[in-house]
Amino acid sequence: VELSFVRWLRDRAVPHRQVPLGIGDDAALLAVSPGHELVVTTDMVMDGVDFRLTEVSPRLVGRKSLAVNLSDIAAMGARSIASFVSVSLPRSGGEQLARELYEGIFELAAEFNTSIAGGDTNSWDGPLVINITAVGEAPIGRAWRRAGARPGDQILVTGDFGGSILGKHLSFSPRLSAAAWLAEYATVHAAMDVSDGLSLDLSRLIDKSGCGAEIDLARVPISGAAVELGRSSGEQAIEHALSDGEDFELVLAVPPMEAQRLLSAQPLDVPLTCIGQFVKDAGLWAIGSDGRREPLSPRGYEHRLE
Amino acid sequence: VELSFVRWLRDRAVPHRQVPLGIGDDAALLAVSPGHELVVTTDMVMDGVDFRLTEVSPRLVGRKSLAVNLSDIAAMGARSIASFVSVSLPRSGGEQLARELYEGIFELAAEFNTSIAGGDTNSWDGPLVINITAVGEAPIGRAWRRAGARPGDQILVTGDFGGSILGKHLSFSPRLSAAAWLAEYATVHAAMDVSDGLSLDLSRLIDKSGCGAEIDLARVPISGAAVELGRSSGEQAIEHALSDGEDFELVLAVPPMEAQRLLSAQPLDVPLTCIGQFVKDAGLWAIGSDGRREPLSPRGYEHRLE
Repeated sequence: VELSFVRWLRDRAVPHRQVPLGIGDDAALLAVSPGHELVVTTDMVMDGVDFRLTEVSPRLVGRKSLAVNLSDIAAMGARSIASFVSVSLPRSGGEQLARELYEGIFELAAEFNTSIAGGDTNSWDGPLVINITAVGEAPIGRAWRRAGARPGDQILVTGDFGGSILGKHLSFSPRLSAAAWLAEYATVHAAMDVSDGLSLDLSRLIDKSGCGAEIDLARVPISGAAVELGRSSGEQAIEHALSDGEDFELVLAVPPMEAQRLLSAQPLDVPLTCIGQFVKDAGLWAIGSDGRREPLSPRGYEHRLE
Repeated sequence: VELSFVRWLRDRAVPHRQVPLGIGDDAALLAVSPGHELVVTTDMVMDGVDFRLTEVSPRLVGRKSLAVNLSDIAAMGARSIASFVSVSLPRSGGEQLARELYEGIFELAAEFNTSIAGGDTNSWDGPLVINITAVGEAPIGRAWRRAGARPGDQILVTGDFGGSILGKHLSFSPRLSAAAWLAEYATVHAAMDVSDGLSLDLSRLIDKSGCGAEIDLARVPISGAAVELGRSSGEQAIEHALSDGEDFELVLAVPPMEAQRLLSAQPLDVPLTCIGQFVKDAGLWAIGSDGRREPLSPRGYEHRLE
């Protein structure tokens, strides 16, 4: 990268007590708290696939590319430390684009106390590609996995679902502070974040946990956007809530007594709702308004290789 | 990603004692050794810029995309733990391409004991893009930085230089075992790996260290490939050695007595050569065959944003 741009980057990188060495060497150094293990996730997004620069400002694209990674860190019940940003910029206007992207990235990074500690900036004749790797930490053996939900555990979710495409997919807040509170004060048996659709992601969680899940459809928090989208799509709002994805809310498996306590205390900066329970019978089940249980087909965004 | 491909990946990922949780959750978990800090580097490569799939096998492209990151880990005097691989695959033939890429990645990963612990696999209408983030560890405060070279320190290098384009840029071995030996048994004040050109990278190291460097041109180990390339390019082999780049050898600042000891013992799996010394006078200097010192212009590959 041009030296002036690296300098610009380095000047914007906020000092962080866990980053003794950031941008500008062969690698960055991160300090891990004693008794903690590392939590690492990475995500690549491309213009024309995950967003369109013709429709979205670079600042929001940068913001989202970091936010999806921080959402994964939250889904592990971890605390973020540092993020690493690689970009391939289209040759024409690349530096201006990079500055705008990074404005969005730095803004969110400051909000969630993650240091931009390194990366790789390139230009080429192709469309914009961004890869971010986020690094966090959790007390050893305490990170939340997808495996671990037990029959009887309640299914708790943060926030509401559906219609993210109308705006939330760009403006959502990764649930890091909710996760930090829960990791410290609550018992969580399993967790994940909803990126591909509530029902599809929940089906992945139960696959890993070796149990089933019953969703009480009437209790699923449906977003205003899902209702709005339902009006034009002809699908029911609940369908949008179950399958749209990009909600970036947490799904948690919590033992019943604990769930009761959390639901009445509502200790988070986002509403916590019980939408059903984990059960012995494998598979996903829906409880309808008549109280009857029927199999529910997981729906959402399936990534495919061709 | 298609589930079958994720399964294929997971089956190939070798268990690693420092990776309690690898591919298949929201994030990976890495165990850091007590008293160590994290070393993190990331690098993005694109078809048509860093390689051409029309000319190079995907296996070698995969190998190289990991090798450049491990070279950075070596340049910090660190030990590798895990790597994270994101790819954007061209839609047509993407899965086959991915399998070949990963064969090269897994092969090198096994050789250097780095676990492929996560990643993100996408397909799109653009050319192949690969981003790898490598994570390693070093005893706290002991990682080698570019800053730290002192006047009087000898400039030691591993291997030889120039003409990498004739083959070494694809087949090189990251100097992890040499770095591990030196980190344990020697005193190294500063280090980096040579990716953009010996003279250019050395000029970056002295910038960070706040000193100068004198290169004794007669002592620079010139590769056979640099000689061969010189025959056709009309440039002298030493010019290729100083500026070609992609040598992925280590440049080390080592105090004089220690340098003497290392040069006579030659304890590494690669030859160690002294090519000059760090000096008080800022800038890069060349000592010619007549023993006279002249300013040397750093040359190499400059990354530019347009």
